[in-house]
Amino acid sequence: MQTAGIAINEDNSHFFGSRPPEAMTEAGLRELIDHYAGPLTREVLLNPNAMRASYAARTWEPIWEGIEFREDGTACHRGMELKPRGARWPRNAQLLHERGLNPYAVWLAYAREKGLGAWLTMRMNDIHSVDEPNNFMHSAFWREHPEFRRVPHRFARWQDAALDYGRPEVRERSLAQARELLETFDLDGLELDWMRFGYHFRPGHEAEGRELLTEFVGQVRALAQQAAARLGHPVKLGVRVPARPETAAELGMDAVVWAQAGLVDMVVPTAFWATTDYTMPIRPWKQLLPASVTLAAGLELNSRAYPAAPPLRNTAEMVFGYAANYLWQGADRIYLFNHMDSETAVATETDRLRILNLAGDAAAIQQQVRRHVVTYTDTVQDGREVGYALPVSLGTNQFREMRIPVGYAPQGAVQAILGLPKDAAETTAFEVRVNGVPCPAAAAPELAVAENVVRLLAFTVPDGAVGDGECVVEVRNPGNPAQIVWAEVLVMPKA
Amino acid sequence: MQTAGIAINEDNSHFFGSRPPEAMTEAGLRELIDHYAGPLTREVLLNPNAMRASYAARTWEPIWEGIEFREDGTACHRGMELKPRGARWPRNAQLLHERGLNPYAVWLAYAREKGLGAWLTMRMNDIHSVDEPNNFMHSAFWREHPEFRRVPHRFARWQDAALDYGRPEVRERSLAQARELLETFDLDGLELDWMRFGYHFRPGHEAEGRELLTEFVGQVRALAQQAAARLGHPVKLGVRVPARPETAAELGMDAVVWAQAGLVDMVVPTAFWATTDYTMPIRPWKQLLPASVTLAAGLELNSRAYPAAPPLRNTAEMVFGYAANYLWQGADRIYLFNHMDSETAVATETDRLRILNLAGDAAAIQQQVRRHVVTYTDTVQDGREVGYALPVSLGTNQFREMRIPVGYAPQGAVQAILGLPKDAAETTAFEVRVNGVPCPAAAAPELAVAENVVRLLAFTVPDGAVGDGECVVEVRNPGNPAQIVWAEVLVMPKA
Repeated sequence: MQTAGIAINEDNSHFFGSRPPEAMTEAGLRELIDHYAGPLTREVLLNPNAMRASYAARTWEPIWEGIEFREDGTACHRGMELKPRGARWPRNAQLLHERGLNPYAVWLAYAREKGLGAWLTMRMNDIHSVDEPNNFMHSAFWREHPEFRRVPHRFARWQDAALDYGRPEVRERSLAQARELLETFDLDGLELDWMRFGYHFRPGHEAEGRELLTEFVGQVRALAQQAAARLGHPVKLGVRVPARPETAAELGMDAVVWAQAGLVDMVVPTAFWATTDYTMPIRPWKQLLPASVTLAAGLELNSRAYPAAPPLRNTAEMVFGYAANYLWQGADRIYLFNHMDSETAVATETDRLRILNLAGDAAAIQQQVRRHVVTYTDTVQDGREVGYALPVSLGTNQFREMRIPVGYAPQGAVQAILGLPKDAAETTAFEVRVNGVPCPAAAAPELAVAENVVRLLAFTVPDGAVGDGECVVEVRNPGNPAQIVWAEVLVMPKA
Repeated sequence: MQTAGIAINEDNSHFFGSRPPEAMTEAGLRELIDHYAGPLTREVLLNPNAMRASYAARTWEPIWEGIEFREDGTACHRGMELKPRGARWPRNAQLLHERGLNPYAVWLAYAREKGLGAWLTMRMNDIHSVDEPNNFMHSAFWREHPEFRRVPHRFARWQDAALDYGRPEVRERSLAQARELLETFDLDGLELDWMRFGYHFRPGHEAEGRELLTEFVGQVRALAQQAAARLGHPVKLGVRVPARPETAAELGMDAVVWAQAGLVDMVVPTAFWATTDYTMPIRPWKQLLPASVTLAAGLELNSRAYPAAPPLRNTAEMVFGYAANYLWQGADRIYLFNHMDSETAVATETDRLRILNLAGDAAAIQQQVRRHVVTYTDTVQDGREVGYALPVSLGTNQFREMRIPVGYAPQGAVQAILGLPKDAAETTAFEVRVNGVPCPAAAAPELAVAENVVRLLAFTVPDGAVGDGECVVEVRNPGNPAQIVWAEVLVMPKA
């Protein structure tokens, strides 16, 4: 089987916010691409926009517009002071412009030169910080048209203030922006990132919305074909959408229909942000999409056991766990979002390089320690309730099962790991079976876990108990009532 | 568009248990088929077995085997007294045998004569009453082989004692039984009912299990083709499987693969028993299955708002609600399970006939009052948690959304209905929006609801607020904390 490979997303602020002004040069720009070019890297996807663009765009305001930059490095927008890092981003983007450099043009050209797929990825409905009306990130269009918000009658969460793609004004503006990207740059592909932020219609209006969005994607497809004719090489179209096919469709993003109609070349089902999704149904996606469409499984940077749990930043071993599951199910790519080269990045540079060199290679991953952690699905249709495997509260003599996908059958030692919260009794002793096989207690290994986990219990899973696919961890509590706030299956290949 | 139509399942005990001995005649048998033959009836699916057969089978024990029938009408099996209705079933089945009648042969022939699709439906792993080891319904095979159970180390619920299809002995026995049906009868189709009871492998062993089950279905397919050659007409193969494609696959029932491999002609995603499923994803199923495969949406007899809620027996209006949703999503049939002609039946004969005459016709349903009630999904992978829309507890000034599928856009008056439990304050007053549109309070209509619902609140949904697909009911509670235990959208077409 062909080695799957990796796709990497670089967001609209990271480079500009993480580098000093001296790095705002062609060499400084190229260095970013060098950091992402590994033996498995297939595509680099560069994001030029949220509500504004990080270059001197026509159809978006440039990110620096209307910001007063002061001598002392502080800055102000519509009376609102920027945070220090917030100021660095627009100022550095502006610096590049002043120096005559369009960072996206430089990046795309250099990525193409290095043989990488050079993509732009356009955020279709970004709503970062919409609780701050004067934040510099916002477009005048969003600020001046509260009537275009998808939930005009309330503002309970950011997604209520996303733009309503049921409005022709919203679609037309967005289409003009996609046209600008496709007419301006020399690119191998354009991704429409519908997962920033995943909510594009008035709740309950998604069935009519998906007709509109399918038409919209078709229009962008036509523009991409025009770009291909202009450039003399293919210009592909991709989409990022919610983790589950029916969630995507019921939120108006009909990715299966788009793929079956030949409108898109790459589909990226993905978690949104709060956590990477351990149950993302890649196999059903693969069954739904034409074979010619690249199915890229999207990771986020953090893992959370449940919505109220604190996050744990992914380690290489956790990424290998997710990747083993997704690749076994048939993913053509591991798509890394927010796994950048600094700041918004995995914990160490060593981890970053291990991921870059291994995470898209099913054979290589099976040689690595991997952690299959329990998380949840963080993007859900308005008004649909979902379940959470954790936390588990077990009364005396109660039991609970947890289904944990592992993908490829473990070769080597396997442990089931359970995490207890702060107030757990010292005497907590569970009886654990995996796939029905009793697992004796073992010394707990050292593992990075979320900060609400105070103690780990480990159980040795006998050889051969876990095969391909998913395993079921059964925990029985013979003692006093106890709570479990973390769970995972740890796979350690033989040396 | 072609009118979809109805498929009706007759179980293995209903006829025998609901009729007097005098009806155990050819005329009595035929009457059952007459009751199911409506203008929309496409298939009648007759179930000859659970662990035993309701006729004198070779590869199953007949249901009457080993039962001591006494003069006074009582009966006993392995020291266990049968309940009165329990005794009537095996005795009537035995009576037919003594009279030289095989009921399934009579029914199939008569159904074919009437132009109905005449199917048998074989329960693949029935576990009714497995907490009673000496119950007359059990096979010696099940009783004598506790080591073949899917969860041998515990017995917490019936499904733990289902047979493990990972065992060759279990598959071979089951295959011999399917062979008997296909070699004995003249039938238009055989359904493998994997939803009695939906759990066929050791938890965590489903990935290897689905390989085995796909091979098994292929073997039955070959037997069906031999039967077709013998009979000189096609013999189709169908399957009943869990409501969601990934649930089916993750429990070992790879219906999508079976369909894509050409092994089955009909797929019936369905709720199990506790409740009909208001969120069954028919549209994704339709996208996954080849166009040549009939997609039948399975109903159960009851609706429950959540697992701990009491059941409400479906009314015609509720069936029309489910059917409007499923047909709009692309279902080719409405499949009625446990909607029989007496006892295990909808509340009134009038309801039964209205369902029979209308429920498979999308145009006709849209002329009827229909109720779109909130329920849940009752078959879930071991160790996977799911969410429940109800009950909802709303503190002061809290709000909650509920997403309710309606299918075809309502033509006529629409109300959102909320049900309050016993201890609800008289002053409870919610603010309700549907799809963002405010809905004024109205007088509550008379509706059959579950017995835990003490008071109904109704809200008038303005014309045009609800379109095709799903709607979102938003409930805000300006008053004291309150609970909601029932919710639905009521559609009343203009007279």
